[in-house]
Amino acid sequence: MLSLLSLRKQIDAGSLTPREAIALSTAAIAEHEPEIQALVSRNPVPFVAEQGPLAGIAVGVKDILDTADLPTQMGSPIYEGWRPRADAAAVARLRRLGAVPLAKTTTTAFAFLDPTQTRNPRHPGHTPGGSSAGSAAAVSAGMLPLALGTQTGGSVIRPAAYCGVVGMKPSFGLLPTVGMKCFSWTLDTLGLFTAGVADAALALAQMTGRPGIDLPTTNPGTPRIGVVLQDFCADAEPEALDALERVRAAAEAIGSRVCDVVLPAVFAEAFGFHGTIQDFEAAQALNWEYATHRANLGPLLRAHLDDAQNVSPNSYDASLKVAGRARRQLPDQFAEHDLDVILTLSAPGPAPEGYASTGDSRFNRLWTLMGVPCVTVPVGSTPTGLPLGVQVIARHGDDARALKAAHCVETLMREQNH
Amino acid sequence: MLSLLSLRKQIDAGSLTPREAIALSTAAIAEHEPEIQALVSRNPVPFVAEQGPLAGIAVGVKDILDTADLPTQMGSPIYEGWRPRADAAAVARLRRLGAVPLAKTTTTAFAFLDPTQTRNPRHPGHTPGGSSAGSAAAVSAGMLPLALGTQTGGSVIRPAAYCGVVGMKPSFGLLPTVGMKCFSWTLDTLGLFTAGVADAALALAQMTGRPGIDLPTTNPGTPRIGVVLQDFCADAEPEALDALERVRAAAEAIGSRVCDVVLPAVFAEAFGFHGTIQDFEAAQALNWEYATHRANLGPLLRAHLDDAQNVSPNSYDASLKVAGRARRQLPDQFAEHDLDVILTLSAPGPAPEGYASTGDSRFNRLWTLMGVPCVTVPVGSTPTGLPLGVQVIARHGDDARALKAAHCVETLMREQNH
Repeated sequence: MLSLLSLRKQIDAGSLTPREAIALSTAAIAEHEPEIQALVSRNPVPFVAEQGPLAGIAVGVKDILDTADLPTQMGSPIYEGWRPRADAAAVARLRRLGAVPLAKTTTTAFAFLDPTQTRNPRHPGHTPGGSSAGSAAAVSAGMLPLALGTQTGGSVIRPAAYCGVVGMKPSFGLLPTVGMKCFSWTLDTLGLFTAGVADAALALAQMTGRPGIDLPTTNPGTPRIGVVLQDFCADAEPEALDALERVRAAAEAIGSRVCDVVLPAVFAEAFGFHGTIQDFEAAQALNWEYATHRANLGPLLRAHLDDAQNVSPNSYDASLKVAGRARRQLPDQFAEHDLDVILTLSAPGPAPEGYASTGDSRFNRLWTLMGVPCVTVPVGSTPTGLPLGVQVIARHGDDARALKAAHCVETLMREQNH
Repeated sequence: MLSLLSLRKQIDAGSLTPREAIALSTAAIAEHEPEIQALVSRNPVPFVAEQGPLAGIAVGVKDILDTADLPTQMGSPIYEGWRPRADAAAVARLRRLGAVPLAKTTTTAFAFLDPTQTRNPRHPGHTPGGSSAGSAAAVSAGMLPLALGTQTGGSVIRPAAYCGVVGMKPSFGLLPTVGMKCFSWTLDTLGLFTAGVADAALALAQMTGRPGIDLPTTNPGTPRIGVVLQDFCADAEPEALDALERVRAAAEAIGSRVCDVVLPAVFAEAFGFHGTIQDFEAAQALNWEYATHRANLGPLLRAHLDDAQNVSPNSYDASLKVAGRARRQLPDQFAEHDLDVILTLSAPGPAPEGYASTGDSRFNRLWTLMGVPCVTVPVGSTPTGLPLGVQVIARHGDDARALKAAHCVETLMREQNH
């Protein structure tokens, strides 16, 4: 994979030019894209800035994010050939930092569940996950050092875990969603895909203008970890649970305090209401598409929006209330158990076989609803070579701590796998 | 003016067809638009639905809201001729209710402060206010029974008051902003302009699918009112204060309990931080426009965005914290003083003379930041004929109560002016 941090170090040292860095991506795309099919469109002659903290960094942009120089097609024939006038706010920011939005990456239609044609670079025959399929696969295949995705349920963390890359869903509100096709304004969160945690930390620090988000140069210490198994949803697969236990053992071995945390009932309740909030808002957000192009929606989305028309304002209000209660109580959980981070699964198991499903977001939805920063870290593979990930979660606004602990986990598991 | 409720009653009674109702708007536009200049574009052959709870209602749509069948130009040459693919969510909803989005209404560029060419229908030579200038003026001139606007500072309540119409800024989150050009995602709120309070209540109830928002058919009772003078910002003009005192006296005369409320310091502090939040977000939301078309921004917006580049994430975070504290404390103010609604000014005075300024939003910004429902009600005019309004404010989510109390004020002041 292409490491953003490593590219930037070479550029800063003068051993690589921004143009050469972009050429690495172009070459990797030529080699892998025919098989992986992670890209929808790309800029054949991109402007390459010579200066800027992200100069030389080729970026993949999920195709529900507006770009002024490339079509934005939402993974849907309804937006075939669609050309926005402006860049999404996050894309404009990346350009100002010197990065090169080189390609648009595949997305399930409107970031819902109807699969894309994208292949999992780590294991042919298995889904790359969704909805940010192309962003996860492009980074995994070494085509791009950075890609933007979005998460409403589990659309960043899940595909990142399935494809063996780092996925970061920052705190709700940290990255602007302006110029992103909305599905649910309470949930939609912009996120990043990178080769490693340090790459994500550098990118997020630059994109937000918050240097404190980047990894500390000093010893990161040993995070205090609370393991959450989400007993309120269906069991995970043994391979995913094994990976979690390996991380637990490795953290304990370096002196981390690791405890089990069973969340109070309000979190189970909030988890159950994620769909109500999402669907009530999606029915409004996609009102035009549903009213005028229902036949051209993906079959899963069409059926889902059919049902979503019937979610009542009262259920929505009640769900928002529970979610608000859970959000207010979550910091207490960190305080009560004296935690830096929560550790849980990134997905119920490795990427499912086949391309009919993009997998399951049940280990992601609660955290999206809570608006807290989540990082998935690759922690090895199943015996058949399917990547596994674990998810590191911090308090809202504490993205730096989530990344620092994720980096610790990453380091431990890399050592273990060597 | 054209009353939405009255048109709908005639249509329900069979004495008016939806097509005839739309023709009333078309005729009024032909008569008044050459002088008022409230419209940017209009649909010459609109589809007129025969059925639906808002069939026959012509709607004006502020030109920062996307429409699939009319250009959306943001009041800016940067978006000259721009054609979105989809309708904004609120526009799509209106179409599904049978309403006819007949015209796009003028907006200051990107809904900031650079004035439009629109004239105040009630008083030539005075600003109609902004940023939703065209929506306020079109309803005021009797061209449309309903218009959509947006408010980030005071862009619904202020122009409505200046033009002598009802303006309603609902609770934050009640109407979707999907498909609206974003200025500040924490503040941007969609609102309505109508001839009377009952018209706004019916429209909002229909648009949200919440019949409880509509006015009660039974006796509305006498609202418990707390008068807030916002002693933390510069004094209002005597004519505006007189109007407020007339409403106070009229309410007391029908048995309403009216008390003075001085808000605790946190509200003054939050008021002061509105700009920090707005500007930090605007610098991101308009990043593409600033980076690529700075020379074509309006002069006021350009200078403002120049400064906005320097708002630090730390100031933003601190401002959001204060705003959150104030939001959580606002319900206590209603409880402590046993209030249904807060009553305050809609603007510091009547519409200023000339067209260089769109007026002042200092009596609106705190309430936008609090996300609470606000209704401005016309309460007569100055001796020179400039309209005056007062603002009725309820708790977040209590839009029905805001409308009910506003209707009471409207009824009292109509009786007084006859």
